Amino acid sequence: MGIDFMEPSAVTSLVEHLAVIVFAITGALVASRKQMDIFGFVLLGTATGVGGGTVRDVLLGHLPLVWVQDPSYLVVCIVATSITFFTAHLVRSRYRALLWFDALGLSLFCVLGTEHALNIGAHPIVAILMGMITATFGGIIRDVLGGEVSLLLKREIYVTAALTGAVVFVGLEMVNQGRAVNLAVGFLCCFVVRGFALYFGWSVPAYKARPGRDIY
Amino acid sequence: MGIDFMEPSAVTSLVEHLAVIVFAITGALVASRKQMDIFGFVLLGTATGVGGGTVRDVLLGHLPLVWVQDPSYLVVCIVATSITFFTAHLVRSRYRALLWFDALGLSLFCVLGTEHALNIGAHPIVAILMGMITATFGGIIRDVLGGEVSLLLKREIYVTAALTGAVVFVGLEMVNQGRAVNLAVGFLCCFVVRGFALYFGWSVPAYKARPGRDIY
Amino acid sequence: MGIDFMEPSAVTSLVEHLAVIVFAITGALVASRKQMDIFGFVLLGTATGVGGGTVRDVLLGHLPLVWVQDPSYLVVCIVATSITFFTAHLVRSRYRALLWFDALGLSLFCVLGTEHALNIGAHPIVAILMGMITATFGGIIRDVLGGEVSLLLKREIYVTAALTGAVVFVGLEMVNQGRAVNLAVGFLCCFVVRGFALYFGWSVPAYKARPGRDIY
Repeated sequence: MGIDFMEPSAVTSLVEHLAVIVFAITGALVASRKQMDIFGFVLLGTATGVGGGTVRDVLLGHLPLVWVQDPSYLVVCIVATSITFFTAHLVRSRYRALLWFDALGLSLFCVLGTEHALNIGAHPIVAILMGMITATFGGIIRDVLGGEVSLLLKREIYVTAALTGAVVFVGLEMVNQGRAVNLAVGFLCCFVVRGFALYFGWSVPAYKARPGRDIY
Repeated sequence: MGIDFMEPSAVTSLVEHLAVIVFAITGALVASRKQMDIFGFVLLGTATGVGGGTVRDVLLGHLPLVWVQDPSYLVVCIVATSITFFTAHLVRSRYRALLWFDALGLSLFCVLGTEHALNIGAHPIVAILMGMITATFGGIIRDVLGGEVSLLLKREIYVTAALTGAVVFVGLEMVNQGRAVNLAVGFLCCFVVRGFALYFGWSVPAYKARPGRDIY
Repeated sequence: MGIDFMEPSAVTSLVEHLAVIVFAITGALVASRKQMDIFGFVLLGTATGVGGGTVRDVLLGHLPLVWVQDPSYLVVCIVATSITFFTAHLVRSRYRALLWFDALGLSLFCVLGTEHALNIGAHPIVAILMGMITATFGGIIRDVLGGEVSLLLKREIYVTAALTGAVVFVGLEMVNQGRAVNLAVGFLCCFVVRGFALYFGWSVPAYKARPGRDIY
């Protein structure tokens, strides 16, 4: 017995749905930029929402996928993207909204994806990579299918933010067992790094070709 | 005993091969538009032919893939695309041919993919999505690899047609058990919708940005 | 006992790591052409290095992936791409370097991928296709993520070289059992074909539209 009306796995599932919804909305906002129809909104949004976790689970061999067994993930994507179709025009600056929703999804998924891989017994290095994949592949799929410039090609602090959150979370996991606190701190680190980058237009030092070489 | 010289699974397998061939030809026709060599025809055609079913089965965790266990799917792709390499110039209007072959493959795969997912025990919503994925991902892979504008970005009734066919088929499955009739009706619904869209240049209402917002 | 300080599987693992490193460097060189930051180098290089084998193993249902169980593949990618980030400017003609590293990786992976599929019990036709996929998909992923023109669209002898190596290796396997020699000969055939194509600018006969058709 007890008053476990909110057991840990239920909280995780809730946060996961939240992250899926947030990314689905970013997909729908790209669909609005491309003036797609409502099915384009739903499809691009759903692919963005569940894409990162799907790539992670296929790579880990963790099949069948969670959204195949539990259609609630698809239902929230369909509902969220449909609502976006009818309300997106109310938002004054949709591109800024897209960037901040994306930052939120990135931060949620980088710790959730890393935790998921650790739970399955993956090596910490693999778990960190899985966190980065979960966080970034939804957006990569969205940009490829939506014909946007891939975020990998923009010189912004994006992947780096996901890396930061995943590394902080794994590091904290190695020294203590307070899973919820570790997740929260990892999430905050990623969101702060990405948020500062968005707000101040930060970028990491890019590769610069030095002079004295052949033109290629 | 009996006169089961054509049992149901044999018919399904035959229709599946037909759908694979039809999509393989669309891949080969894109290869001809890009003036690829014969290996480009075979590779792009094969990826288009088996791509949709491959994505579906990986997502469903239905591994190993059917074409890994039964190379006949690859053989028909190789043969069909090679024939296309030597005969494509005989077709006066290859782009129209591509569109109509594509519509045929779309309609076949949307019901076959949905049925496949239902057989495995997927939820109807998941099954409908799997039908749409089977029907559209061969073409998406073809367009990405072939450098064409993704069909998701064109404002045509395409995904909508696959959705129609899959929904009609699932709806009929819920009320009766005549699998063959249900498949045929679902196929026809998709083909008619897509065919009318092609013939009359129909499109669904696109998202239109309303005035009074910031430029983004 | 004996002096098996170098058993066959250890050699295979060593050669596999070498192929992964070589492809990871090509990814890093594309990252340098796009002036990415160090994380872009690592991510694009790692995706290129393990991408081909990943696609193959997902299609074969050979999960979990080898690099998920053995992080050493990721570690060599991270190290090799980081070194490339700090040294790429020392190479006078990086584009030529990229092409030759790519040819080396292509030749290694086309025989290793084919052998891997044969070991699992795949049909020879499937095994040849798997060798081609292992050899080419790392580069395809690199070009899509890095925004380069896909190698499938260039009219060079590339896929053809991988096909040659895979077919020669499978043919030799059918007549004798000297695995190491067969691998070496298959590797050399692929490398010579690709090398000659690079050196002399060879290409296979492309599809040419004949006159007398509608413009499409």
